[in-house]
Amino acid sequence: MNSLPHSFDIPTLGPCIHPSPGLQKEWGMADGHWVADDQRILLDDQVRNGRVNPTAVPNEHSVELAGPRRQIFFHPSATTLAVVTCGGICPGLNDVIRNIVMHGHYGYGVHRILGLRYGFESLNPAFRHRPMELCPRSVDKIHHGGGSILGTSRGQQDPVVMVDRLHALGVQVLFVVGGDGSQKAALLLHQEISRRGLSIGVVGIPKTIDNDLLFMDQSFGYLSACGEALRTLTVAHAEARGGRNGVGLVKLMGRDSGFIACSAALASGEVNFVLIPEVPFALDGERGLLRAVEARVLERGHAVIAVAEGAGQHLIPLSNPSHDASGNVRYGDIGAFLKQKISAHFASRSLELNLKYIDPSYELRGGIATAEDRIFCLQLSRHAVHAAMAGKTGLVVARWHQRFVHLPMPVVASGRRKVDVEGDLWRCVLESTGQPARMD
Amino acid sequence: MNSLPHSFDIPTLGPCIHPSPGLQKEWGMADGHWVADDQRILLDDQVRNGRVNPTAVPNEHSVELAGPRRQIFFHPSATTLAVVTCGGICPGLNDVIRNIVMHGHYGYGVHRILGLRYGFESLNPAFRHRPMELCPRSVDKIHHGGGSILGTSRGQQDPVVMVDRLHALGVQVLFVVGGDGSQKAALLLHQEISRRGLSIGVVGIPKTIDNDLLFMDQSFGYLSACGEALRTLTVAHAEARGGRNGVGLVKLMGRDSGFIACSAALASGEVNFVLIPEVPFALDGERGLLRAVEARVLERGHAVIAVAEGAGQHLIPLSNPSHDASGNVRYGDIGAFLKQKISAHFASRSLELNLKYIDPSYELRGGIATAEDRIFCLQLSRHAVHAAMAGKTGLVVARWHQRFVHLPMPVVASGRRKVDVEGDLWRCVLESTGQPARMD
Amino acid sequence: MNSLPHSFDIPTLGPCIHPSPGLQKEWGMADGHWVADDQRILLDDQVRNGRVNPTAVPNEHSVELAGPRRQIFFHPSATTLAVVTCGGICPGLNDVIRNIVMHGHYGYGVHRILGLRYGFESLNPAFRHRPMELCPRSVDKIHHGGGSILGTSRGQQDPVVMVDRLHALGVQVLFVVGGDGSQKAALLLHQEISRRGLSIGVVGIPKTIDNDLLFMDQSFGYLSACGEALRTLTVAHAEARGGRNGVGLVKLMGRDSGFIACSAALASGEVNFVLIPEVPFALDGERGLLRAVEARVLERGHAVIAVAEGAGQHLIPLSNPSHDASGNVRYGDIGAFLKQKISAHFASRSLELNLKYIDPSYELRGGIATAEDRIFCLQLSRHAVHAAMAGKTGLVVARWHQRFVHLPMPVVASGRRKVDVEGDLWRCVLESTGQPARMD
Amino acid sequence: MNSLPHSFDIPTLGPCIHPSPGLQKEWGMADGHWVADDQRILLDDQVRNGRVNPTAVPNEHSVELAGPRRQIFFHPSATTLAVVTCGGICPGLNDVIRNIVMHGHYGYGVHRILGLRYGFESLNPAFRHRPMELCPRSVDKIHHGGGSILGTSRGQQDPVVMVDRLHALGVQVLFVVGGDGSQKAALLLHQEISRRGLSIGVVGIPKTIDNDLLFMDQSFGYLSACGEALRTLTVAHAEARGGRNGVGLVKLMGRDSGFIACSAALASGEVNFVLIPEVPFALDGERGLLRAVEARVLERGHAVIAVAEGAGQHLIPLSNPSHDASGNVRYGDIGAFLKQKISAHFASRSLELNLKYIDPSYELRGGIATAEDRIFCLQLSRHAVHAAMAGKTGLVVARWHQRFVHLPMPVVASGRRKVDVEGDLWRCVLESTGQPARMD
Repeated sequence: MNSLPHSFDIPTLGPCIHPSPGLQKEWGMADGHWVADDQRILLDDQVRNGRVNPTAVPNEHSVELAGPRRQIFFHPSATTLAVVTCGGICPGLNDVIRNIVMHGHYGYGVHRILGLRYGFESLNPAFRHRPMELCPRSVDKIHHGGGSILGTSRGQQDPVVMVDRLHALGVQVLFVVGGDGSQKAALLLHQEISRRGLSIGVVGIPKTIDNDLLFMDQSFGYLSACGEALRTLTVAHAEARGGRNGVGLVKLMGRDSGFIACSAALASGEVNFVLIPEVPFALDGERGLLRAVEARVLERGHAVIAVAEGAGQHLIPLSNPSHDASGNVRYGDIGAFLKQKISAHFASRSLELNLKYIDPSYELRGGIATAEDRIFCLQLSRHAVHAAMAGKTGLVVARWHQRFVHLPMPVVASGRRKVDVEGDLWRCVLESTGQPARMD
Repeated sequence: MNSLPHSFDIPTLGPCIHPSPGLQKEWGMADGHWVADDQRILLDDQVRNGRVNPTAVPNEHSVELAGPRRQIFFHPSATTLAVVTCGGICPGLNDVIRNIVMHGHYGYGVHRILGLRYGFESLNPAFRHRPMELCPRSVDKIHHGGGSILGTSRGQQDPVVMVDRLHALGVQVLFVVGGDGSQKAALLLHQEISRRGLSIGVVGIPKTIDNDLLFMDQSFGYLSACGEALRTLTVAHAEARGGRNGVGLVKLMGRDSGFIACSAALASGEVNFVLIPEVPFALDGERGLLRAVEARVLERGHAVIAVAEGAGQHLIPLSNPSHDASGNVRYGDIGAFLKQKISAHFASRSLELNLKYIDPSYELRGGIATAEDRIFCLQLSRHAVHAAMAGKTGLVVARWHQRFVHLPMPVVASGRRKVDVEGDLWRCVLESTGQPARMD
Repeated sequence: MNSLPHSFDIPTLGPCIHPSPGLQKEWGMADGHWVADDQRILLDDQVRNGRVNPTAVPNEHSVELAGPRRQIFFHPSATTLAVVTCGGICPGLNDVIRNIVMHGHYGYGVHRILGLRYGFESLNPAFRHRPMELCPRSVDKIHHGGGSILGTSRGQQDPVVMVDRLHALGVQVLFVVGGDGSQKAALLLHQEISRRGLSIGVVGIPKTIDNDLLFMDQSFGYLSACGEALRTLTVAHAEARGGRNGVGLVKLMGRDSGFIACSAALASGEVNFVLIPEVPFALDGERGLLRAVEARVLERGHAVIAVAEGAGQHLIPLSNPSHDASGNVRYGDIGAFLKQKISAHFASRSLELNLKYIDPSYELRGGIATAEDRIFCLQLSRHAVHAAMAGKTGLVVARWHQRFVHLPMPVVASGRRKVDVEGDLWRCVLESTGQPARMD
Repeated sequence: MNSLPHSFDIPTLGPCIHPSPGLQKEWGMADGHWVADDQRILLDDQVRNGRVNPTAVPNEHSVELAGPRRQIFFHPSATTLAVVTCGGICPGLNDVIRNIVMHGHYGYGVHRILGLRYGFESLNPAFRHRPMELCPRSVDKIHHGGGSILGTSRGQQDPVVMVDRLHALGVQVLFVVGGDGSQKAALLLHQEISRRGLSIGVVGIPKTIDNDLLFMDQSFGYLSACGEALRTLTVAHAEARGGRNGVGLVKLMGRDSGFIACSAALASGEVNFVLIPEVPFALDGERGLLRAVEARVLERGHAVIAVAEGAGQHLIPLSNPSHDASGNVRYGDIGAFLKQKISAHFASRSLELNLKYIDPSYELRGGIATAEDRIFCLQLSRHAVHAAMAGKTGLVVARWHQRFVHLPMPVVASGRRKVDVEGDLWRCVLESTGQPARMD
């Protein structure tokens, strides 16, 4: 966990003057149902030398619990919610859309919910995307399909234009489902709204298949993607064992963080080398990857390698770096690069090689959510609606140490989470694969 | 979380005088790889009124982190490990067996690992069960099948007899994979070993498909079971919609705790009533279940009910209570009971009813582990081997707030975890199903 | 195959005077696309003593190929199609509904397609079920869910009433998705229509999860059900191996025919006894089932039994036989009966027994179709629409020896197909399970 | 179906003088269990103008049924079986290996069964591959993993060397699991054996994931591959709908025949263009593919294209054709080619395009078999063992019109099956996708 000088206070649009609809039901919720704003949990619960961290300024060291508030800010019947999905698709997007609608409609009685098409483009009138009217009936079955029924796009639009558009559409709350880049854009939007003094909430739902957002146990879609990656690794193992000196090489998503590669390899139990951006490695030399792969193949007849897309970028000569529409640097293709290097190495040793290279990225992105992820998406959506109706804004909902919390947008937008090379996940990878702790 | 008069100190068999094999490898583990005994995390990280709980006696409020120790107690080449699986089967048992073998063999160089057949019977010579010799080759593919390759049984055996048998078999560490009852038995075994001053470790791996052990985020097999329960609920929904006034009634495991019923219902999004042991309900009367089901069916044409096996036991007249071999009270069959009561109610109203009752218990128990559970089983097994080799004993490995820790056996054996009816899980159930918060 | 004095001629409503819309497209279908009415295949293609069966009266020995006709009877834009689903649910029902709509709409330009609710009740005004208007958009995703979006019911209604209702609704073609009982009812309906001289087609799509209709390679949903049954048998095997003297007993659908039990057992490779209605067996005695199960368990430690629901009915004492709404005799519960008998047998031998009895019937019925079944449903639906638009009536579409054909309704309604105990399927069961060829 | 100058007689090694072990069991097989050599079925069962094909020389028009023979050629206890897997991996290979062992061992009492490593290399001593001894225990669980536990290789070895090696290993029957190339090699081997007058049987089990062997309903692995291809098409559809003007382009296996592309597209119901080797198409021009894709995208917002790897080869400029180890011409990459062409076309029209190109070939090859395919593999293996034990040789087992038969190797090696562009499969593709019947 990074040590950060962040404030963990959550902005609000104003006082909560309406009783939550849950209070009004005939067989209403019990007192214990409601969560108070001063219920918080520590960010850092580690005990060192018999002591926890100082607790003098707790709001910098703790974070607000998510959940239904007894009093809310918006009057449901006069409220319009809108949801937008940004960046690449990942399993669970339709679950999130569906549950925002279900919870807004049945939980609060909000009857106008807009689905904005193709990411932030939807808030730039130049693109002429018409919003979809969403209701329980229209979203009932959407989670049986992958992707996003709203479509997505990469990149930002001018916050001034977007606020104008939200205002024109009569939107009170915008749910932004997206990664760190999209949450940065959502933060600019929130700031422009604040500047104008408008009562429009902006609530983020963190979406990154790479599982690389800060202060979160995990992101939705990640576990589903790991399950799919496991399928591919199983296939790669079958291919590797199918031919003499077989090598199965699988490139998995993970631009800056190797979470999918690590977790899928652990689930598989058949991976021999996990290569991630956080751990540099050499190709050549006595301790380099090529010798290690050769040794493994000669000893055991085959090998399986899981490489995160962002691993080993220092090894790939790039003529002229470019960027994608989200502003990410385009990476060199480490999979194709390793395929070429391993092939050349075996050829130089006059060794047969049967290398199969698989890149299952679209299969990881485009599938549907597992049971676990469906619950997770439901919880994120539900807590996002609770936060929104209570007038909270400029926040992202997330799970931290098994509880759902509100994180300020600047915290989430401030960086990306990495695999801790001195943490338990990477330890488990080293111990399970048996790969050298250092290959440099 | 219960408030706790427990000690969270972990007993040890003696000083750790051997360097861990991981230190000896040519390309050995980095310094940060090793976990020290004083690395702990808080049990309770909640902040109330800007304060955490007092930290004066931290070992009663914190718990030791699991992980590889730099120095270990047992000399691997002279060590015999044994593993026993107790109670009902659940997804992941073979993963746990496999990973204990893999990690003991490859991680530490232990070459004698015994698989004990049919639970604690294996340690009573009267049963004449011969242990299996386990090695990486023999366990390589076992996780592709459900159940336990060792077989299981319920119930305890005399600790004196069992210690004699462990001694006769030359076992240094026994891994006990089982629920709270089995961990109680393991505790008695540990105490008998201590009484005799023997250097035999007893390390528990918590197994309960009901997810009802104390101080744990979850237990292995639970998520896999929820995935399977989701399948059944989906079928029940198809059946419910297939006939006029259709009702799908599904009984799910959960003797004292309704975790599976709650989680599977949330994953489904198609369940209208979740009935769990923690929340009493009435059948009859204005606010009772029968009227609520009738109202739902008349309004929407169908209903789906998920009932945990331990729910509503107060409603079922039992002539003479009995116990199973594990000492659990045999419960009345709430599923069959509700089927009869709902049928009678609809008949009394002259309403057609198409009720389908499904009990998928064996399907939940007997399947294989999902990707997520496979990783979880790997982590538990690996941490159990680390703890065992470091001479720790009388403990259970578990995950708490996302990190793996060592729990003293008495803590785990002291009770069962319940769904907190004022916690976020039950809140989410109420909000998602729309069922009345009280049906009594 | 039964030897039958049936006519295999297909009735028609009149001459086909309209060119098929496929001819009118700018880039229209090639000449070879169209199927002529005199394209037929033999019913019996066996060669014995170098000779095929006499071919003098070929229409009694051959069957008409299904497929698009160049000229059609109905003018699409003035045609209303209706579809009704009858009997129990099974995988693929929604695929059939979806594809009738898709093919009627896109293939022929039919724009009024009605979905009739809850089986033949829909055609009896007393039930007041309103038809659903179906279109490509409304059915686009329905195959992702099991069951039937239309609902089903068992039993018949008065043909006179039903024809009145079809007429009142303006229906030109009724598609009846149902088993032999429903096809019998459809035949009565067709006969009443003929009696009145109305131009209303009745086209059957055979539906029986038991795979027991005559003159068909298979029925839709059957393969999907076998896949689900395989899952259950795998679980039963895990349970059987989980305890000492473990027996996994699984009851599978199959009232009169043991196809599912046979096929699922073959797919499993872990079943030791397959019991089907076609093969009587004794319980007691030297060659009876009980001794055989005991011998297997003593020798190998466990056993798995797959029993079709209609097997061994002669063994079960029934006080007073009753019938279900479809007119089927209610069977005694062979699963519960065997559980009791095996338990008593082992007890009488003082042998421990761990028997787990699983009845997964709803899981087999309520799931979704596999890829193979989805294609099969598509083909059946498409051929049903082709036949209907060409004015063919009183027929059922089916696949025979790998080609799709038109079967006259009386043929399909005349009996049920059985597992041939001298055929390849049962041979394969005997050889694969190793069970005694006779247990009587 | 090709018209045929073939003989369909099956060679034999000599008279069958041993009673089948199935006759000797205490509770032996009934008379009807056994199949006689003169039980045959017609190859062509079509009726045209009320007549079947002439039946004067039935053995050229009919084919021998597979099944257990009452008398066999080999004495089981003195027989050694061997199995070799050739060419690319596909789902079901391990099922076939397993069932040959199970059926040889339990069905006939053969106790020496060899698994030959890495295809025909195993029969060339230069490669120094040692055979594996296979027994029921060692193969019990292998079907839970994909690929072949024996490994495979492409290409042939000298028949003279191979016969020497078979002789040296004491093999009486070699089972060759492979495609048309491998069956050609098996035929040469059989001919060399015949030339030497040796009593060694060679029995082929046809393996082609492309489903392109002659005179067969299907090949094993094909249905499983279609199921996996369906998954990919579903993902491609999610991607296509995820972005504006989204196109999902999926390349599926099928060098000379488009069966997988056709069937997977039908299972999906979401594919708009199916491109196969049997149907040439133009890119440019009024009726070309590019305009058709553009029209579809502009009208509906997205499109999904399934292209078989062998489709459109005439369009791809190849500088210098090469061959793989099996002697197949290496094809140009139609997927990458179409991606480039479609992108250029949309760019030339100043249209945004979000094209995702997926090549799931390894996922199709490396998975495990579905329930249906597991039964199919069992049947093929069992019939291969029956044929082999009866001394039949130079044959391939296959299913024709739903029954298992013996095909002479020259027939299978004589060509490849194509999608009939005037047959029902392609008709169904045209009608379901709505793609133009001609794009040239």
